[in-house]
Amino acid sequence: MEIREVRLRQLDAQRFIAEKVEEISSIVGDGLAINALSGGVDSSVVTMLGHRALGNRLKTYFIDNGLMREGEPEYVVSLFRGLGVTVERVNVERTFFDALKGLTDPEEKREAITRSFYRDVFADLVRKTGAKYLLQGTNYTDIEETVAGIKRQHNILEQLGIDPEEMFGYRVLEPLIQLRKSAIREVAKALRIPGEICNRPPFPGPALATRVLGEVTPKRVKIVRNATSIVEQELSHRGAFQYLAILHEDKVTGMREGKRDYGLQIEVRCWESTDAKTGSPTKLPHDVLGRLAERITAEIPGVVSVTYHIAKKPPSTIEAV
Amino acid sequence: MEIREVRLRQLDAQRFIAEKVEEISSIVGDGLAINALSGGVDSSVVTMLGHRALGNRLKTYFIDNGLMREGEPEYVVSLFRGLGVTVERVNVERTFFDALKGLTDPEEKREAITRSFYRDVFADLVRKTGAKYLLQGTNYTDIEETVAGIKRQHNILEQLGIDPEEMFGYRVLEPLIQLRKSAIREVAKALRIPGEICNRPPFPGPALATRVLGEVTPKRVKIVRNATSIVEQELSHRGAFQYLAILHEDKVTGMREGKRDYGLQIEVRCWESTDAKTGSPTKLPHDVLGRLAERITAEIPGVVSVTYHIAKKPPSTIEAV
Repeated sequence: MEIREVRLRQLDAQRFIAEKVEEISSIVGDGLAINALSGGVDSSVVTMLGHRALGNRLKTYFIDNGLMREGEPEYVVSLFRGLGVTVERVNVERTFFDALKGLTDPEEKREAITRSFYRDVFADLVRKTGAKYLLQGTNYTDIEETVAGIKRQHNILEQLGIDPEEMFGYRVLEPLIQLRKSAIREVAKALRIPGEICNRPPFPGPALATRVLGEVTPKRVKIVRNATSIVEQELSHRGAFQYLAILHEDKVTGMREGKRDYGLQIEVRCWESTDAKTGSPTKLPHDVLGRLAERITAEIPGVVSVTYHIAKKPPSTIEAV
Repeated sequence: MEIREVRLRQLDAQRFIAEKVEEISSIVGDGLAINALSGGVDSSVVTMLGHRALGNRLKTYFIDNGLMREGEPEYVVSLFRGLGVTVERVNVERTFFDALKGLTDPEEKREAITRSFYRDVFADLVRKTGAKYLLQGTNYTDIEETVAGIKRQHNILEQLGIDPEEMFGYRVLEPLIQLRKSAIREVAKALRIPGEICNRPPFPGPALATRVLGEVTPKRVKIVRNATSIVEQELSHRGAFQYLAILHEDKVTGMREGKRDYGLQIEVRCWESTDAKTGSPTKLPHDVLGRLAERITAEIPGVVSVTYHIAKKPPSTIEAV
């Protein structure tokens, strides 16, 4: 299957919406579909397209896998309630942490998350609802990077030679597969999705698990969740493309109350980019860097050291895992 | 033994030198002493004091443990030849890498280096020369941090309850034990040690082993040695207190030639400090940070990511290990 990009300048957002609504409608027929809404722009657009096409025959879930940001489930459910979309929160924290237990290799961690999503959670929801379709927000950059072998995306099954219908009992529809982020934002605006969603920085599917180097445990996710809150509070008004906190597995020497304290290190990244294909670290003022370091070491027990990422993509990547 | 600090403002450098020369002379008598010169200001001052006191009866060695910076052995030997001091280079690379093999815990690594220095290398030199004394440049900050339990110094035996005479067959003299770095620099000037030594940033005894998180192998030391060269080339003219490169054990995602490349991360630290007791990250201009990242990723195979350390001491420390 050859996927052709629709570039921002070629995009007629209203026509795109009409086509996709028609397409989803004709494929799903009078059956049911499900989708998982993470609160990112991609899954938000898919949710709105799906609801235009299917109305109540699309069941939208917020999969609370224990890897989301602080306050995220409540925020997303309530925001979409305001848009007339009922989102059901599914608590599957245990499923994910059990699957991640003892894993330190990034590929194995991604694999465990993919498996938990598709085989455990979605397959279960499909069984429960009788749906035959899963709608999801895979975009052109995901495809490109998977094909190029840069990074294994969590949500692209067919590109990886997996037939979800045969394996899990449902078909996957990916209405955004021809668009990059900038075009998806245009479609979001045309769908009247609020700016706070359209302009959210990208957030990876495996969520905070991507931000923990080494084993992903509830305790370690809590640390990086706190650091993420601080980074978002300090940087969200600056208009950067993406900003994130990473918990390292390496420990470093620190001191507390005059005593040696061998502790944790948090890495902060903040990116300037238009399409995530290339990126440069944001030239944050040193007082901002200093405040980030001070808050992270003061507010998160066990963290003694903070770094700021200064290499471009390439040869680096936006996320560390 | 209570050690009392002599502060910079109380210091009469010439009188200090006369007293220490007299003290070393009277303790060593007509015997022999040895000392290890690393090229840092502390060991350089000890070398000059020892030579004033003992002349040829002090044998000075450069211990090439395979953990030194690029070109360091040649530089130090030739610089001291110019000062009239013969420095013998001892190649003990194998001893140290064998001792470090398989170790990842920082305390175990420091312990292995301490043991190699005192039990293997110095004990051997003492046997060979018939010396009864080892002169070394332990300073007040070392003592203070060891006593406070902040950081285990590699060169303080008695403070750790080890009797070197009984264990290794020699006594340790520490003429700089009452001084901090700023006072030691004054003494260095009074001894007419060249500015390029006096103003060198501090460099830890365990050398580049301190800059490698995880196992210290010849290959990993080579990587951090290259990164250290780049950091010193780019930052040495800025007058910072100390600047260093650290090789992380954590690996992160990167990309090379359009393909995913799971690679290494280097952390750069640059400090403003007067006495190493407290410190702040230098507010390096972003073009300097960018050039550091670009050179390190371009010139060192396998490195895909570079960070800059932004937390203060405390709660961080100057070195990461």
